Amino acid sequence: MNLDTKYWYLRDHKLFSVLSSSELKSICMISNFKSAKKGEIILFSHDENTRVYFLKKGTLKIVEIDDKGNEIVKDVLQKGDIFGEFTLTESQSDEYAVAVSDSVICCSFKMDDFEKLLEKNPQLSLSYTKWMGFRFKRLQNKYANLMFKDVRTRFKSFLEEWASKEGMANSDEIILKNYLTHQDIASLICSTRQTVTQLFNELKEQGILDYSRTEIILKKVA
Amino acid sequence: MNLDTKYWYLRDHKLFSVLSSSELKSICMISNFKSAKKGEIILFSHDENTRVYFLKKGTLKIVEIDDKGNEIVKDVLQKGDIFGEFTLTESQSDEYAVAVSDSVICCSFKMDDFEKLLEKNPQLSLSYTKWMGFRFKRLQNKYANLMFKDVRTRFKSFLEEWASKEGMANSDEIILKNYLTHQDIASLICSTRQTVTQLFNELKEQGILDYSRTEIILKKVA
Repeated sequence: MNLDTKYWYLRDHKLFSVLSSSELKSICMISNFKSAKKGEIILFSHDENTRVYFLKKGTLKIVEIDDKGNEIVKDVLQKGDIFGEFTLTESQSDEYAVAVSDSVICCSFKMDDFEKLLEKNPQLSLSYTKWMGFRFKRLQNKYANLMFKDVRTRFKSFLEEWASKEGMANSDEIILKNYLTHQDIASLICSTRQTVTQLFNELKEQGILDYSRTEIILKKVA
Repeated sequence: MNLDTKYWYLRDHKLFSVLSSSELKSICMISNFKSAKKGEIILFSHDENTRVYFLKKGTLKIVEIDDKGNEIVKDVLQKGDIFGEFTLTESQSDEYAVAVSDSVICCSFKMDDFEKLLEKNPQLSLSYTKWMGFRFKRLQNKYANLMFKDVRTRFKSFLEEWASKEGMANSDEIILKNYLTHQDIASLICSTRQTVTQLFNELKEQGILDYSRTEIILKKVA
């Protein structure tokens, strides 16, 4: 990828908007870009080249394999999200990312380089800290949902959050591109595939939503 | 509290160890100290004076009242921990802190002042970001425990974590000061008081632990 394209992608990211154009140009030199097609895996390396990734385009799911060999979806990330070792800690998790939309582009920095960048740019550092604060709050909410809400409420909250992030709203409905399997949704809300399928069917019968292989349609109830 | 004492308390905190003594002295001027006795409440204000708190001495629990009026313990914090709006986001949560040890001392900054401090001190800012990364990982672990582990395993993990943070180890046992009620522990591991009491009794019968009103004694099994 040439420097102009890199520059354009980085400029476009909220976090980097605090940087001057010359600062941006200099970080283009140390960033690395990667593209992936639907189903392709982005592995997080755990050697000295631990990286911080910025999702520039598309949708990813963060996956871990459990003791029994099952794929557990831990998070779904959209354009603008940061992943990999974004906590700037070196850990030995067995997470990796899988592209779920047709074309995914992400940019990455070696963790060491990214730390130097933060140290040099106090403004960037503060935005990064605040951004991490938002992620922390999001996880806190997920945790509170899991502790205090039943599976039906968790399912509805999940759909609402998804719709607010990615839904296309018409006058009387919100349309979601349906790229997650029932199993994916089950692991995101800590339930089983069977329960998720049952909840989809129940809400369909009640006229609250409709769904097909490609779309989920949430009805706005008057 | 006089400036020398403030200085001593701040110097003692890991996060501030990256600052020079003159930088430390200048932040003493903008910090506020508060002490509390067992049972006293530290409220987080939600006006323009939102604050970031550093726990300097003692133990606190972070509490929220649920819809039914029950007190839910969300976290237990020890010396060195940071709380309040440490995510640097203004939120409308209904959390507050309760002192659970005899004497608690914490230091606080107005959020705005603390942000300026981070902007001026890139080193401090990077340590703060990393520190937040560790907190994020800790919450991620709690979430994974809740999703993938049964209540018995969560109870044991909780005791192990507690022991590693605060236990006094003898040759064949680890002693914990027992300042949490069974209800507190229940809300921390997302269970009920009844189950926690039952688990305590079971593990006591199995010779894995012993407990009284004041202590929990974990036996090191050979």
